[in-house]
Amino acid sequence: MPKIVERAKRKEEVAEAAWRVIRRDGMEHASVRSIAQEAGLSAGAMRHYFATQSELLAFSMNLVSERVKKRIAGIRYTGNPFDDILLLLFELLPVDEEKRAEMEVWTSFTVKSLTDPTLHTLSKRVYDELRTGIVHIIESLVAHRLAPPDLQRELEVERLYALIDGLAMHRLIQPEQMTPETLQSVMRHHLESICRRE
Amino acid sequence: MPKIVERAKRKEEVAEAAWRVIRRDGMEHASVRSIAQEAGLSAGAMRHYFATQSELLAFSMNLVSERVKKRIAGIRYTGNPFDDILLLLFELLPVDEEKRAEMEVWTSFTVKSLTDPTLHTLSKRVYDELRTGIVHIIESLVAHRLAPPDLQRELEVERLYALIDGLAMHRLIQPEQMTPETLQSVMRHHLESICRRE
Repeated sequence: MPKIVERAKRKEEVAEAAWRVIRRDGMEHASVRSIAQEAGLSAGAMRHYFATQSELLAFSMNLVSERVKKRIAGIRYTGNPFDDILLLLFELLPVDEEKRAEMEVWTSFTVKSLTDPTLHTLSKRVYDELRTGIVHIIESLVAHRLAPPDLQRELEVERLYALIDGLAMHRLIQPEQMTPETLQSVMRHHLESICRRE
Repeated sequence: MPKIVERAKRKEEVAEAAWRVIRRDGMEHASVRSIAQEAGLSAGAMRHYFATQSELLAFSMNLVSERVKKRIAGIRYTGNPFDDILLLLFELLPVDEEKRAEMEVWTSFTVKSLTDPTLHTLSKRVYDELRTGIVHIIESLVAHRLAPPDLQRELEVERLYALIDGLAMHRLIQPEQMTPETLQSVMRHHLESICRRE
């Protein structure tokens, strides 16, 4: 493997070790030392990849959003606009174990970002990127005449975006109640309601 | 002041000190020592109120939900069912600084509850209590014939509940974009949409 590729791969492995520590023990235990231990690296080897804890956490947080983007880019669309938008929205919900793990880690980073300036900048950037995606979804509903032309687009953007994050949050707190099926039913119902298909 | 009342008051002051530490420095700095310092108490005096950090954090988390309940019990209703339900929903959104502070602390506790069994039990209990409140709201929309009788009640409960928490979360991350006015407009729009008043 070329050295630069191997380095990138190692950094991702360290980030994944950070995710495991955060999920298992909480953010307050996500020290460089414990993440190095989880990744099976010495403190010296660790410094080779990340100079500070802040840099390591920012990289680990960013990797969550990179993984989500990669998954969205890999969606196999059907050609039916309504179904395709639903596919895209389902991709943003923690319906399987991988997505649930990502969402759990992302939420921990988001809360930490409230008191950490570096993570806060990153959190706001990803918030804006995702919001832009939601704007496109709402615009495309109108463009495909799925939603009425007088749709209150600004309000619908905020409503849909908040619904996605609220559902994800509830899946973390009450997974027995908020099953993958319920998440998807609520999302489908919401899209049908915007499209007046009820 | 009777001793038992004074003790309760002191415990609330310690909990409020815990909130300040969590908001300012993050949950990872919410040690008994730093909370005692913030509250102006010695370690010995602190032990008089709380035996362990876990007990202190659980009390502080629970106090957030007690404050919200107290505020809801104090709402002055107008007698118009639609307006009154909107008043109640607005009370659950972080539209002013006090509510935003509560929501920030609550979210930090919720994330910590994912790796702390005592807080997890508390988090689920409050989740269920609030969900019961949302069930009543949806039922009362139908009972007052504001919403159609064929309303998909189960889905509407989860949708409204997730919307509330998603909006609150977005206010924490992007307060410049998610202003109190936007929060209220989205909530009013959602209620109108359920009631087919658009």
